[in-house]
Amino acid sequence: MTMHSFEQLITSFEMRFKVRHFPEQPATLYDPSQYILGIGGKRVRPVMCLMGNELFDHIKDAAWEVATAVELFHNFTLIHDDIMDQAPLRRGMETVHTKYGTNTALLAGDVVMIMAYEYLRKVDPVLLPSILTVFNKTALEVSEGQQLDMDFEKRDSVLLSEYLEMITLKTSVLIAASLKMGALIGGAGEGNAHHLYEFGKYLGIAFQVQDDYLDAFGDPAKFGKQVGGDIIANKKTFLMIHAMETAGEADRNRLLELQNYSGADKVSEVLKLFKKTGIDEWAMSLKNEYLEKAYDHLERIAVMNKRKEPLRELASFLVQRSY
Amino acid sequence: MTMHSFEQLITSFEMRFKVRHFPEQPATLYDPSQYILGIGGKRVRPVMCLMGNELFDHIKDAAWEVATAVELFHNFTLIHDDIMDQAPLRRGMETVHTKYGTNTALLAGDVVMIMAYEYLRKVDPVLLPSILTVFNKTALEVSEGQQLDMDFEKRDSVLLSEYLEMITLKTSVLIAASLKMGALIGGAGEGNAHHLYEFGKYLGIAFQVQDDYLDAFGDPAKFGKQVGGDIIANKKTFLMIHAMETAGEADRNRLLELQNYSGADKVSEVLKLFKKTGIDEWAMSLKNEYLEKAYDHLERIAVMNKRKEPLRELASFLVQRSY
Repeated sequence: MTMHSFEQLITSFEMRFKVRHFPEQPATLYDPSQYILGIGGKRVRPVMCLMGNELFDHIKDAAWEVATAVELFHNFTLIHDDIMDQAPLRRGMETVHTKYGTNTALLAGDVVMIMAYEYLRKVDPVLLPSILTVFNKTALEVSEGQQLDMDFEKRDSVLLSEYLEMITLKTSVLIAASLKMGALIGGAGEGNAHHLYEFGKYLGIAFQVQDDYLDAFGDPAKFGKQVGGDIIANKKTFLMIHAMETAGEADRNRLLELQNYSGADKVSEVLKLFKKTGIDEWAMSLKNEYLEKAYDHLERIAVMNKRKEPLRELASFLVQRSY
Repeated sequence: MTMHSFEQLITSFEMRFKVRHFPEQPATLYDPSQYILGIGGKRVRPVMCLMGNELFDHIKDAAWEVATAVELFHNFTLIHDDIMDQAPLRRGMETVHTKYGTNTALLAGDVVMIMAYEYLRKVDPVLLPSILTVFNKTALEVSEGQQLDMDFEKRDSVLLSEYLEMITLKTSVLIAASLKMGALIGGAGEGNAHHLYEFGKYLGIAFQVQDDYLDAFGDPAKFGKQVGGDIIANKKTFLMIHAMETAGEADRNRLLELQNYSGADKVSEVLKLFKKTGIDEWAMSLKNEYLEKAYDHLERIAVMNKRKEPLRELASFLVQRSY
């Protein structure tokens, strides 16, 4: 049986996903829901679900339903998060609440979530309870992550362990759960499904470390977002938290001072202190540490080694071993 | 087999529901979710589910799970509706967003909804897809009703047929669906389940006509809310829409003028015009018309007549034949 590359699956998913998922009327509600689905995204999560399935067996109908549910759920969180963050743009396009108003965006998010469950409903009844168990647990965790993120913004300091927990909940568990639900549909046993979940979880964390790293040290030409954006916004990232935890007292005070500074050299001043404390190398090794943990769990899954190749390719597409 | 009165079922449900439905941590997220559940409500919808089951068979475990899911879903809509309406109070208590802030309330609403699906998950896999079909359809319709309500607020005029559709979606279909899901759990066939759904739908509409009537003509001592509240807020109710549709040109212009008037006699002036056009009697007969439709469908359900007694009692508790 030939397996698919992640690029092939992205293309296949995109083709199926590119339909209207909502009734036509009332358009005032459903057009905003459909709008968010059209502004792109890498569709990594649904493809993880398909790949989780294909690691164990050919892709079943249920995997497409769950993949769609996962992508809808992800977009539901984007709509509501953008309201909470008062974000005007997403991927260069107007956010739903900017385009349609906050009240409609709130409700449009709700129906995207309900529609996710409508796709889950189509899963074979034998599998449905176990899929719903993973999905519901994950949906709650993602919400917890968002709440912790908002809580942390109001605090002066956050421990690295707390940030790790928050970012795991907010971004990694959905990747992990997508893989696991795919695995369950593919007929994986609990042990294999667990290792695939852990693979996704650690891959997600490594990706986030990389994202925080690139925000500070990335090549502006290659990195999609504004380099230094986290520093300008005083975000508590892996880098900033570790810098605050390990810098000497003078440097720590300087980092605190810089939070209230908005001069043009804010980013370069912070980066100078980051480099002085060796944050760039620390972040690289932290990322590799999580990547190793991810690969470790992938190794421990009891299927033919070559079946894991597409997942390894996706992992190295998402997280580079070095820059 | 003895059946339960709706009062007994309210008491039983309240006892089971009065637990913490969410994890302890993070308390910043889950305490707000739990808070809304504690500020009361008649628990009519979950009891409808239990009664729908008991009309056909003794109450199954699944009915308690679905009843809980229905009550959670209802509270999810209350949290989000209160944000959209910027309502400071609900049943005399602070609304969730007033007490905890809008962002947390948004997220707290989301997790109440996810938890509703977590209760649904516990339903027997044989029944689960049909329960989810009804639940998801209803959840979308309730959202559509809320969106139409917001759309109508921005419009100068709304047809009675449009208001009827909006209010059916916003309030009646959840009552109807609660009864139908209970019926399915109780083993009802499609025909019986359909008639029970229609009974609930028309009962809900009759209740809404009564609510609109009491807001204008109710006894302030008996009616829970401020009499004339709809008139002060320029709400398009059954009464106002019909008055605008049937009044002579002079009276219609006077009603339009009164919308921009905020004197102490606004309510009494509008009521004068309502009475002049015979709105009070029209509303009474409209309510009775829907109540008759409801009872008609109840009659057509093929079970022993005396099994319907608790539902008749609940109906006449909710909607009086006269005042």
